[in-house]
Amino acid sequence: MKTELLEKYADFIVRVGVNVQPGQTLLVSCPLEAAPLARLCVRSAYAAGARDVRVDWYDGLTARARLELGDEAALSEVKPYLERSYLDYAESEGGACVLHILADDPELYAGLDAGKINRVRVARNQKLKTWRDYTLNDKIAWCIAAMPCPAWAKKVFPELPEASAVEALWNAIFEVCRVTHGDPVAEWETHIARLNALRDKMNAYHFSSLHFSSANGTDLNIGLADGAHWESAASFDDRGTLFVPNIPTEEVFTAPHKDHVDGVVYGTKPYAYNSQLIEDFHVTFQNGRVTEYGAGKNEALLGELLASDEGACHIGEVALVPASSPINRSGILFYDTLFDENAACHIAFGASYPGTCKGGKAMNEEELKKHGMNQSVIHEDIMIGAADTTVTGLTEKGETVTVFSGGEWAF
Amino acid sequence: MKTELLEKYADFIVRVGVNVQPGQTLLVSCPLEAAPLARLCVRSAYAAGARDVRVDWYDGLTARARLELGDEAALSEVKPYLERSYLDYAESEGGACVLHILADDPELYAGLDAGKINRVRVARNQKLKTWRDYTLNDKIAWCIAAMPCPAWAKKVFPELPEASAVEALWNAIFEVCRVTHGDPVAEWETHIARLNALRDKMNAYHFSSLHFSSANGTDLNIGLADGAHWESAASFDDRGTLFVPNIPTEEVFTAPHKDHVDGVVYGTKPYAYNSQLIEDFHVTFQNGRVTEYGAGKNEALLGELLASDEGACHIGEVALVPASSPINRSGILFYDTLFDENAACHIAFGASYPGTCKGGKAMNEEELKKHGMNQSVIHEDIMIGAADTTVTGLTEKGETVTVFSGGEWAF
Repeated sequence: MKTELLEKYADFIVRVGVNVQPGQTLLVSCPLEAAPLARLCVRSAYAAGARDVRVDWYDGLTARARLELGDEAALSEVKPYLERSYLDYAESEGGACVLHILADDPELYAGLDAGKINRVRVARNQKLKTWRDYTLNDKIAWCIAAMPCPAWAKKVFPELPEASAVEALWNAIFEVCRVTHGDPVAEWETHIARLNALRDKMNAYHFSSLHFSSANGTDLNIGLADGAHWESAASFDDRGTLFVPNIPTEEVFTAPHKDHVDGVVYGTKPYAYNSQLIEDFHVTFQNGRVTEYGAGKNEALLGELLASDEGACHIGEVALVPASSPINRSGILFYDTLFDENAACHIAFGASYPGTCKGGKAMNEEELKKHGMNQSVIHEDIMIGAADTTVTGLTEKGETVTVFSGGEWAF
Repeated sequence: MKTELLEKYADFIVRVGVNVQPGQTLLVSCPLEAAPLARLCVRSAYAAGARDVRVDWYDGLTARARLELGDEAALSEVKPYLERSYLDYAESEGGACVLHILADDPELYAGLDAGKINRVRVARNQKLKTWRDYTLNDKIAWCIAAMPCPAWAKKVFPELPEASAVEALWNAIFEVCRVTHGDPVAEWETHIARLNALRDKMNAYHFSSLHFSSANGTDLNIGLADGAHWESAASFDDRGTLFVPNIPTEEVFTAPHKDHVDGVVYGTKPYAYNSQLIEDFHVTFQNGRVTEYGAGKNEALLGELLASDEGACHIGEVALVPASSPINRSGILFYDTLFDENAACHIAFGASYPGTCKGGKAMNEEELKKHGMNQSVIHEDIMIGAADTTVTGLTEKGETVTVFSGGEWAF
């Protein structure tokens, strides 16, 4: 991979993705394998005026050993210092912003006890709710971006030798993140403007529900939350800073009504949950709740996901992505939601984003629930869009509008 | 490097060095480069019954970027969570123990502002005093061990290609740590017994001062602290667990009287301070205090060290190591105190260990000072022993005893 492209990518992540502001502290979480990217992001953050940068490194193999050998109670424990380690910065005068760098083996935890892993994760998320709400509610700017690691690259390109696979995955990431040609900052301005125009169009229709269908058997009706608001690529934090939470992003999305989802939906890409792969799955909903499900691989893991908490078997997001998105056009299955969710329409089990409901960021949990906004400690996107997907919208006035036809935006 | 040796080394570090006890949490600090060793230590710790293992990774190049680009006030800040991140475990029912893995480029910070680096370090150490006292006072078991990184290996073996240099440094570390042949656990039992016998002999003499001389010009008289007690390889933590703080270790050491050190001493090995090298140095003492110093390389850095705080220009440790120690016999200059201090007699600027004064672990700062025990936020060992070093001891009764002759134990 060319150093010049890596530098462009890092700088773009810091300036457009997180949009680090002068005086802020950038909190980075990063796997050991992604050190070359993290180091460049540290330098870019200082150049953007960051007061401080803290990198919290993690190691997949150490995490696997702990989940394999550690006691569940000990693993689920969250000492008081941990939430403070974030809040001490988020609450400080200069404030904080967050960058998560991913470089994960999609099957890192293959063969481990999926139930234990999920219970540990859910327990920890519950105890870190105050901090997690900072990003879920866009109180502070946050961004997720990725770089290849050998295990991930070999999963995506199994036919290539390791070094070539890593190189190929780098090229794919640079390409779908619009880094390869010219100035990514300018390219993303255009891209965001286009997505915003689609978002505005969707909001203008005032849809009350959407219907998804495909020859694969998908026949799903999704009622939208009361006051559902469509969002796209970029968000504003509480200080008014524009940031791009996901790199790449191709979606226009909103909040379903947690109790008004009915029908059956078929997964169109494998889903990596807790570093194990769920494949060939389908889910049936009644009154918003999953009543039946199945999977060709790791069905029990899908069950664990859906049983995480009360809200895990309802959905909190519906997102529209055309089949012609650069990620889908690349023909590559990334085995990573950050990419694959931008290759296809998707729904998410678990929490809704308060920002996708009018006035939602100022509502408490009770008020959000009254609007049909789903609550959960998980938020897991699964891909349901295919090349023949049709999406129709029902407006508040009772008109039916074609939104997607043949997997593409109809307008 | 052979996997089998690495596994033996990791297991020995965990079982003999830290001596992890059932129910404890092992807190590991480790550079990214040392991941292969850290991962094995995690597994050994669980096998030894650890309740939990936390690895705090750090990256030298990120640390360098922060020290280069970061604001001094921001770098010197210690948020409340940081000390809690250790104390939450140390104060827990099962308690904690600590493993520091080193794999550092001895010149990582070459060319940076040495004054800024030292001020940041001193400020942070002061704010973390409560936690630092846990290890300085042996309240909990702690151990420092090392593994090669390419930059360090190339410094030690500049004539070798990188991969061969790393291999050569591995072999040297395994050899001087007694891991290469047979069972390191058994070898270390014998080794510790031999050092303990020398320690007991030194304590039986009841020396009030030592005199160091060498043809290089060293002529130094070191009065010992009131109630000075000689220690060796292994220590006991507050729960009575035996641990070996340094791997390797060859020293028998005690506390000088902070105000009774006089004469001149010449350094016999380069000294890596804050990842910059001080070379060809000498120091003159009067009434315990440094009154003059010089160095062929990085003299200003030596000045920064000595100006760190009130106690930094007094010494807190004197240690005896024979020229025949395996580290010295290897003929290798490691550019790392963990190794080089075990190749030569040494003294340490800064804090004394309370355990090297009879009853010292129960004394407060005032009481320790009254006994002549030095206080400081730094503890920096510098090597002063040569192949011709003579050490004589003056007993309380006024007898002179030869302790070292020709660089070797005289008994």
